[in-house]
Amino acid sequence: MSECIFCKIVSGDLPSARVYDDATKLTFMDINPVRPGHLLLIPKKHYERMSDLPEETAADLARVLPRLARAVVKATQADGFNIFQTNGRCAGQVVPHLHIHIIPRHENDDYSFHWKAGTYAEGEMEDWHKKITDAMHAE
Amino acid sequence: MSECIFCKIVSGDLPSARVYDDATKLTFMDINPVRPGHLLLIPKKHYERMSDLPEETAADLARVLPRLARAVVKATQADGFNIFQTNGRCAGQVVPHLHIHIIPRHENDDYSFHWKAGTYAEGEMEDWHKKITDAMHAE
Repeated sequence: MSECIFCKIVSGDLPSARVYDDATKLTFMDINPVRPGHLLLIPKKHYERMSDLPEETAADLARVLPRLARAVVKATQADGFNIFQTNGRCAGQVVPHLHIHIIPRHENDDYSFHWKAGTYAEGEMEDWHKKITDAMHAE
Repeated sequence: MSECIFCKIVSGDLPSARVYDDATKLTFMDINPVRPGHLLLIPKKHYERMSDLPEETAADLARVLPRLARAVVKATQADGFNIFQTNGRCAGQVVPHLHIHIIPRHENDDYSFHWKAGTYAEGEMEDWHKKITDAMHAE
């Protein structure tokens, strides 16, 4: 873990502008913000992906999200915000230590996630639904 | 609340392909998927934004995320996944009932969130940091 930059931020070996800090989790300013005020929330223990987290660790992380979101919205006078999380390089993950982005948004700001909603062919959704529910039951 | 389509999905007045269902939360297939297998996780009680949630409701929702993520990855043989959440129209929110997107991803798939990381001018991050920490302390 010694090469992980977020572990080094947790330990204090690398500096960060901390916004929230408790025994299990840390929030700090993203130094390469999508929008000003962009925050990162991480577990102090090293996990790579959301799928690796014990459920109580996921719950513990999320518990502070409403308060962080309200604070960022107030401080940036935002009209809204995005919460975003990447798992794996194909999904845009650069630092392999789980992190949750909190990004304040304004009407007509210069950002877009380019949402590209698709459709299913007939029967296709039902096939995926069966595969996913089977995988849930096998968990 | 009677006009909210997600409240109608919760009540059963509108159909959905359910993947997970308990007393407080529901997961179902997004019928307009960004990628096949795209899921939505919602609280059964109507809230609009993450900033509106009681912290225990946020924790309760997140508790099922690791299991859902593992099931979607397994079922779609994904290389990774995104978790995404919109709050406010400026952030891309269409249905004003809080929902968390879980989107399986594959290497070289046809999707990109077009991440556009910026930089802060000297002193700018520190100014935002002070405003946000002040807002956190006022919470």
